Amino acid sequence: MSEAEGNAGRRARGGGGAARRAARTNVGIETARYITRNIPDFEILNAEALELIEANAETVLAEIGVNFVDNPGALARWREAGAEIEGERVRIPRGLARKLCATAPARFVQHARNPERNVEIGGRNLVLAPVYGPPFVRDIDGGRRYATMEDFRRFVQLGQMSKWMHHSGGTVCEPTDVPVNKRHLDMIHAHMTLSDKPFMGSVTEPSRARDSVAMCELLFGKDFVAENTVMTSLVNINSPLTFDATMMGALEVYAAANQACIVSPFIVGGAMAPVTVAGTLTQVLAEVLAGVAYSQLVRPGAPVIFGAFVTSIDMNSGAPTFGTPEASQILYGAGQLARRLGLPFRSGGALCGSKLPDAQAAYETAATLNAALLGGVNFMLHAAGWLEGGLVASYEKYVMDADQLGALHRMAAGIATDPAAQAMDALREVGPGGHFLGCAHTQAHFRDAFWRTDLLDYKPFETWDEEGARDTATLAADRVTRLLARYEAPPLDPARREAVEDYVARRKADMPDAFV
Amino acid sequence: MSEAEGNAGRRARGGGGAARRAARTNVGIETARYITRNIPDFEILNAEALELIEANAETVLAEIGVNFVDNPGALARWREAGAEIEGERVRIPRGLARKLCATAPARFVQHARNPERNVEIGGRNLVLAPVYGPPFVRDIDGGRRYATMEDFRRFVQLGQMSKWMHHSGGTVCEPTDVPVNKRHLDMIHAHMTLSDKPFMGSVTEPSRARDSVAMCELLFGKDFVAENTVMTSLVNINSPLTFDATMMGALEVYAAANQACIVSPFIVGGAMAPVTVAGTLTQVLAEVLAGVAYSQLVRPGAPVIFGAFVTSIDMNSGAPTFGTPEASQILYGAGQLARRLGLPFRSGGALCGSKLPDAQAAYETAATLNAALLGGVNFMLHAAGWLEGGLVASYEKYVMDADQLGALHRMAAGIATDPAAQAMDALREVGPGGHFLGCAHTQAHFRDAFWRTDLLDYKPFETWDEEGARDTATLAADRVTRLLARYEAPPLDPARREAVEDYVARRKADMPDAFV
Repeated sequence: MSEAEGNAGRRARGGGGAARRAARTNVGIETARYITRNIPDFEILNAEALELIEANAETVLAEIGVNFVDNPGALARWREAGAEIEGERVRIPRGLARKLCATAPARFVQHARNPERNVEIGGRNLVLAPVYGPPFVRDIDGGRRYATMEDFRRFVQLGQMSKWMHHSGGTVCEPTDVPVNKRHLDMIHAHMTLSDKPFMGSVTEPSRARDSVAMCELLFGKDFVAENTVMTSLVNINSPLTFDATMMGALEVYAAANQACIVSPFIVGGAMAPVTVAGTLTQVLAEVLAGVAYSQLVRPGAPVIFGAFVTSIDMNSGAPTFGTPEASQILYGAGQLARRLGLPFRSGGALCGSKLPDAQAAYETAATLNAALLGGVNFMLHAAGWLEGGLVASYEKYVMDADQLGALHRMAAGIATDPAAQAMDALREVGPGGHFLGCAHTQAHFRDAFWRTDLLDYKPFETWDEEGARDTATLAADRVTRLLARYEAPPLDPARREAVEDYVARRKADMPDAFV
Repeated sequence: MSEAEGNAGRRARGGGGAARRAARTNVGIETARYITRNIPDFEILNAEALELIEANAETVLAEIGVNFVDNPGALARWREAGAEIEGERVRIPRGLARKLCATAPARFVQHARNPERNVEIGGRNLVLAPVYGPPFVRDIDGGRRYATMEDFRRFVQLGQMSKWMHHSGGTVCEPTDVPVNKRHLDMIHAHMTLSDKPFMGSVTEPSRARDSVAMCELLFGKDFVAENTVMTSLVNINSPLTFDATMMGALEVYAAANQACIVSPFIVGGAMAPVTVAGTLTQVLAEVLAGVAYSQLVRPGAPVIFGAFVTSIDMNSGAPTFGTPEASQILYGAGQLARRLGLPFRSGGALCGSKLPDAQAAYETAATLNAALLGGVNFMLHAAGWLEGGLVASYEKYVMDADQLGALHRMAAGIATDPAAQAMDALREVGPGGHFLGCAHTQAHFRDAFWRTDLLDYKPFETWDEEGARDTATLAADRVTRLLARYEAPPLDPARREAVEDYVARRKADMPDAFV
């Protein structure tokens, strides 16, 4: 590990003070550009199967329909668009939802306050964002405990320090020590001040979505926000086939402000969807068609992402499971459906059910990360730090996963075939029985030839044993400590910071604390 | 875990004594059929890139050539076939090696002494075999130590007990307590008597390959062996571009006896091949073309497998690395080259560099297993138990990996789209806001709906915590103990057993012990 980081330090560019400090302390502060895939997608379903699922999804929308709960405005919009309304049930004639989805952009730029951190979501791109939502945190010393605002800030700092993380995320953990009705203010403030990467807005109440937009107007400028997407927020569907007023209220705020939403079924297969992959894909497509169509009824052209957070249930314990073959199959199939619909696709993540950052966690996580890369995911939430079915944000797993994300970058770059990559000179120079380490081609190319871990152990057994025979989690704990010790907040215009902080203080003063 | 295995027990078929015992003790004894893929292959290279690599490989063979060391017979065969010989260098005119490869079968059956365990290697099939070659073993109690014959037997027993393992393998660990010149006799005896799955022969000297054939003739009958493939053995190429007399001598014995060989470059990229993926693929193809062509010079039609064991070097420590993106890219590309050549493909495995069965081991292993499945591997050696770059066979990792192999089976089955899989009845029955657990479709299908682990933990946090907060390696150690306690040798005709044992005793008496 020290060798690898030593090299990362030596590779640091641009001889400023930050680069020199990075070199001295062996912790990098670069951020990689988001991934643009130069490899094909893995297409698990043939055209016939895709058409069948699409036809079935239209049948679901037309004959079963979806519920928009406690939302007369939504029912009115749907009625006007041509749907059949019965109570809260919305039945959408065949083809209507798909037609409405056509105004959603195939790709869009989400701006960061540092323009170098802007991301383009859609197309061949893959943007990585950290874990979202855990009420608990875990670290190697303290074990599992409720998350606090201090944990939240540390996870945002880790994201800022992580080279392969493109996005600061949203609720990286639930700051349970802050009143429920004020958390969003502190969380967005943390993303705005501790990171210069793009971030997500609040969705837990329409008023909190409005706060998110207002804070962005102070950070980016009102005109800028009116014309650009500066937030991508997570709008879950209450599967099966139900759109609740809270989430739809947030979506309405964001769509109206031209801010992006992920419209995402949240499905534990067998509980919130059928036990079959094809049946689940049908439901996912029906739900996304309805949700995305609704966003376009609110504002045609509003940026939106086809989401699919799907796992399956353990039929013995009832627990959700992660990294299973069925989850990968659904991810691959959903990606195909999203591409046929011309929408950016969200799925995947460092998902696992394990309680510890152990082998189970890594098997499950690697299965999901790999499927997400090959399945054409454009926005990957939970790309690092997820543990215990999303109940826990793990410090050690965050840096373990973040290291694996570097491997995804390299895999996505594909295989070069230019003359240097063909290496015929090397083959001629070395010949049968020779050794490539010293040849001219190797000397010219070895620095960038292979992906390098910043974490994993490649030392000789004896060295590793003498150094304490540390496992991955122990190495990761050490890296967490060093990354946080090295953290420096990115510069921020003091006037904008002050405006954001005034807003937070004023809004907090306006409301009594609420803890439920 | 106990729940999952309880269910496995309840699923046990055929009310015999073994099934009842299995149900009582919660350890299954089924063996799954080898995998037949119902999913496409992941094609990372386009046709232009493949043609370029193929043309470059022909250039390597024609202009650089390969060395057949200490092997005048091989040089004579090549000369007669039309190659240009200069010393030990064999330059193969463009197209000749590919033409010679055309007589090798695209698929073949390897017979086991229990015909239910026969495997077909090639086509859409994937056959899984355990770790091969480690001089050390590791378990959670004893740590890392030299392997013994007793370890060897235990690993064969684990393979026999592992539902998802189709093949008993070869040198599952090196029995370092047995003289080098007699090990192969005890190893093959162990495979023949402790397992009824197919196995591999010795390659460490031509005389040991002959012993392997002779023992098979005693086990299967001489006529049967003359007409059928009963061994698949591992012939490594000394990359770059060198074929040594030991390995080629073993190949000559096996090919002449119509027994299968894996012709496999063993490459640590950057050391034994160029630092680029395209350059390495060129070398792999050139080496396999020469090796397979040679097998067909020995006996046209001899079964042979296109092997690619390729990893890359850590440029800091010089250590080989596993589960890297470059290794996956090479695997995907080599699979395409093998399919274009019409040969069965060997690559992949539970490869990792970690010293412990920890998260690093699992990240690296999962990356490789996944690439092997999607990359079209037909024969996967090292599919379970590999640790520390292949220096160590790990008991715990064996059962951890073997559990993951079950997930590969499910993933490979693809996505069903029959009416039951479409689940439209379930969607209609449940409707918006409902719950699928109780619906008729779920009740009819939940038992086989999802892959089930026999190892991983899905329990509620509190239960898991009360039971000792065990990590995956600890759970695996428990499973190893239970599997070995339940082991029963499969029945074997006493006359055949006696014939094999007489042969072993006679051959041992013929030779003084040798430890180098």
